[in-house]
Amino acid sequence: MALEKLQMIPLGGLGEFGMNCLALRFGDDILVIDAGLMFPEEELLGVDIVVPDISYLIENRSMVRGIVLTHGHEDHIGGLPWILSELNVPVYGTEFTLAYVEGKLDEHRLLDDAELIEILPGKRFTLGPFSVMPIRVTHSLVDCVSLAIHTPVGIVLHTGDFKIDLSSPDGHPFDLQAFADLGKQGVLALLQDSTNVDRPGFTPGEKAVIPRLDDIFAATKKKIFFSCFSSSIHRIKIAMELAHKHGRKVALVGRSIDNSTEIAQDLGYIDPPQGLIIHPGQIRDFAPDKLCILISGTQGEPMSALSRAAVDNHKFAKIDPGDTVLLSSRIIPGNEKGIYRVIDHLERRDARVIHDDGTNGLIHVSGHGSQEELRLMINLVKPKFFIPVHGDYRHLKRHVELALSTGVPEKVILLEDGDVLTLDKDSAQKTGKVTTGRVCIDNNSTADVVEDTVIRDRKHLGEDGLFLPIIAINKRTGAIEGQPEITTRGFAADDPDLLRNARDIVVRTLEQSSEEERRDYGVMKDKIRGDLKRFIQKNANRRPLIMPIILEL
Amino acid sequence: MALEKLQMIPLGGLGEFGMNCLALRFGDDILVIDAGLMFPEEELLGVDIVVPDISYLIENRSMVRGIVLTHGHEDHIGGLPWILSELNVPVYGTEFTLAYVEGKLDEHRLLDDAELIEILPGKRFTLGPFSVMPIRVTHSLVDCVSLAIHTPVGIVLHTGDFKIDLSSPDGHPFDLQAFADLGKQGVLALLQDSTNVDRPGFTPGEKAVIPRLDDIFAATKKKIFFSCFSSSIHRIKIAMELAHKHGRKVALVGRSIDNSTEIAQDLGYIDPPQGLIIHPGQIRDFAPDKLCILISGTQGEPMSALSRAAVDNHKFAKIDPGDTVLLSSRIIPGNEKGIYRVIDHLERRDARVIHDDGTNGLIHVSGHGSQEELRLMINLVKPKFFIPVHGDYRHLKRHVELALSTGVPEKVILLEDGDVLTLDKDSAQKTGKVTTGRVCIDNNSTADVVEDTVIRDRKHLGEDGLFLPIIAINKRTGAIEGQPEITTRGFAADDPDLLRNARDIVVRTLEQSSEEERRDYGVMKDKIRGDLKRFIQKNANRRPLIMPIILEL
Repeated sequence: MALEKLQMIPLGGLGEFGMNCLALRFGDDILVIDAGLMFPEEELLGVDIVVPDISYLIENRSMVRGIVLTHGHEDHIGGLPWILSELNVPVYGTEFTLAYVEGKLDEHRLLDDAELIEILPGKRFTLGPFSVMPIRVTHSLVDCVSLAIHTPVGIVLHTGDFKIDLSSPDGHPFDLQAFADLGKQGVLALLQDSTNVDRPGFTPGEKAVIPRLDDIFAATKKKIFFSCFSSSIHRIKIAMELAHKHGRKVALVGRSIDNSTEIAQDLGYIDPPQGLIIHPGQIRDFAPDKLCILISGTQGEPMSALSRAAVDNHKFAKIDPGDTVLLSSRIIPGNEKGIYRVIDHLERRDARVIHDDGTNGLIHVSGHGSQEELRLMINLVKPKFFIPVHGDYRHLKRHVELALSTGVPEKVILLEDGDVLTLDKDSAQKTGKVTTGRVCIDNNSTADVVEDTVIRDRKHLGEDGLFLPIIAINKRTGAIEGQPEITTRGFAADDPDLLRNARDIVVRTLEQSSEEERRDYGVMKDKIRGDLKRFIQKNANRRPLIMPIILEL
Repeated sequence: MALEKLQMIPLGGLGEFGMNCLALRFGDDILVIDAGLMFPEEELLGVDIVVPDISYLIENRSMVRGIVLTHGHEDHIGGLPWILSELNVPVYGTEFTLAYVEGKLDEHRLLDDAELIEILPGKRFTLGPFSVMPIRVTHSLVDCVSLAIHTPVGIVLHTGDFKIDLSSPDGHPFDLQAFADLGKQGVLALLQDSTNVDRPGFTPGEKAVIPRLDDIFAATKKKIFFSCFSSSIHRIKIAMELAHKHGRKVALVGRSIDNSTEIAQDLGYIDPPQGLIIHPGQIRDFAPDKLCILISGTQGEPMSALSRAAVDNHKFAKIDPGDTVLLSSRIIPGNEKGIYRVIDHLERRDARVIHDDGTNGLIHVSGHGSQEELRLMINLVKPKFFIPVHGDYRHLKRHVELALSTGVPEKVILLEDGDVLTLDKDSAQKTGKVTTGRVCIDNNSTADVVEDTVIRDRKHLGEDGLFLPIIAINKRTGAIEGQPEITTRGFAADDPDLLRNARDIVVRTLEQSSEEERRDYGVMKDKIRGDLKRFIQKNANRRPLIMPIILEL
């Protein structure tokens, strides 16, 4: 038998942010690293999420030994339900990562059939010809690992997402020694996170936000609404500690933050003192200066708890004049308008809004390493070959330049989705191209409707059709002009009852919304879409693509 | 006759960025300041521009004495074609401002009927009971003025857009003395631009970009593509001077930058040495290091010259490996994805892209005054009443706080669109509300098609219908799957010939696009929309709302 070579095939994340997925193949064995999703560009109307095309894995399904996860963010695990429904292979992840995966698979009723295998940082395990050593790294999420994959031709190190936080709030330090050891052993190829390749210097540690947040807690007289990414476990922990220090009770409002906190508590990452956490229904029982409300929705998502509170449409989260709303997060590009819309609503309620606009001090830090951390990693592990991962083309290119500037790797390779990189002990060459692409999935963006979030492929469009409710709203009065019209394609055009009832649903949704909501077309579209989806699913057992069109008259 | 009072009624721009328009009424006379447009939020599908609802002016049409413009940016003049077609009143503006207005009205075939009256900074003119003194200010555009409006109850000063540039590249200084004089005379009310109220300090002058741009010109070995807002006359001038200094010829590529430069040259704002400017067709005749190409499209607009060059689809602007593309502009929120898409395309062509991401030095400055300039203006003119203009609600609120912090105004008033503020010598009170709102206009976004840009009101939708071409694209191959389908509403459903021909148009547009364009859905939608619009207009003399829907399979 000829000496076999290693193949490295990125299926997603090299040429875009999100949907990270990479295959390593040696002979007839394939190991997959991560299975992420991406949120779509606005051009893809009606699409909720995008996942990588895994034709390559499906064509070679008998070879796929498993999927190894670096951590629990959506861009690393969010594609799992779709991928597992096509290809049911074992999934390896740390305890916390698997807790997120479980919740996700349960939502999609895939949990019973899934094989989830827990891995431990520092504990090697075997997958076919690969021996995988997870190495603890620090990031905005907890229990994250890099993967040192020992292959017959050498060690491939995939960093996953990381920053080098020298004082991690969870007490689990970044394992510098393990990386230094790898450097001594010799690393064949380093695949490194490109997210912050544009940022000079070092990324501040998670604890760097404490002084400024402490000031804000100290200076606030009324309620504090604290919003961060629901997976920012460190940040949630810090908020709880500050609330406790300043004599405030903590209420959790919003499904995602509630969920995430529950997992973090179960696994011991957060251990709030007895009595600190109250039920949202108890908010009214406490004085405003005794409350800190952790609330979902930093990105202005129309159906999030914060968006609803901003238009005074949340049962428990009431925003009163003089309350403070603290957004301890960044603006993900593309979400600006939604976020500013929420901020404007909050300002109209006379809330004080503190967000990361550069003028409010260090209230948020990134979870990704900056240039010096990227250089440090390269110097620590001294790879022969270097391949940037996670980023748009320009980030990968910048990262190539950065790696070259260190003078460490023998060769730096700009790989894109679908490229096949073939490696042996001495060489790394692009040798081909496999099918890759983006698969659009019409999930349900209404977070409340768990039972409805069955993943479907856009390919079913021909089957289930297109459903376009057209609503004319009088901008002056906020009233509906005439009846909503419904245009369909490939579905229900011949069913006047269904169309009439669907129209009634739209009218009812509009009527039951507040005036402030009706002026917020993002919210209205989401509500109409959710209500229609449930109705059509129930009455016609179909899942058409629903695209509400709102016209201002 | 009872003593009459002054009414101040914002019709747009107080609660949003854009569509600035404000009415001043005294007795039976109304003066209007500015008539801007706004670009729509993405929720408003198929809408190109948004203009203020001017019902209030139409109801009182016999009282409207004229529209006075502060300067020529779209958010101050872009609504004119629509407003003048409803209400043909005289328009007052400076020479440069009127040159922009003329072009705009000509496009919409309204120029012949329009009465345009040139005003001069420092030269008072009368409009009914109002005596208006234009005062020269500095901004990113040239020939901009504040308006000091002498009314029977006192002076109302509207700043328009401004920064205090102490060394304006056009040699026309900010008229500090005139503002100081007003302060001595006593100003009843100051209305001030809120755009940069969040920025501490002073905004750098326009010339502050020169050192860094000079460095870049000096260090660049191949072609320089220089892109800025087409109305940034100062920036265009600076780019030309640097090109001249570094021995590069200048080619202007893109209709808007060409247009703008022509006006600036005609009016003496730009005076390039003989032979500096070459025709785009001559680009090929010069060595790369002898060329600077001024190109439209800093915001990633899909049909702009830069976007087309980025996908190698521009006749004259060819981007070769090693060329430098300099974006001397900011990212307008909401345009991030489009801009990054263009940057990614450029990077794939191995161009060096320099944009204002915080790491490239001072390559762009804002045209709006920061906090200290806003405070300085308040201190200079010492108004009795202060009213912030131009901004989302949160900016107006911040500006109220900033004005209060100066201790100068007796009263600070947060006014929103539609509020009626009634003033006399001693008091300012909100006394009512008039109808305001946003009117959506389905213009044509394809900048090339001048003859097609007749403004129409969305109210015609019932008449002209909705036209939805649905195209399924195979993401892997970029090929169209099956035939495009066309769904219509209220239009042409009974005309199989028209639908078949429209389908052919879509197929042809797709076929004639490069693979790179086909992967850029923003570009494809714009092209399909433009081609169909021309076809339907010509063959059916209708103007339906056209919304291409692209589905990835």
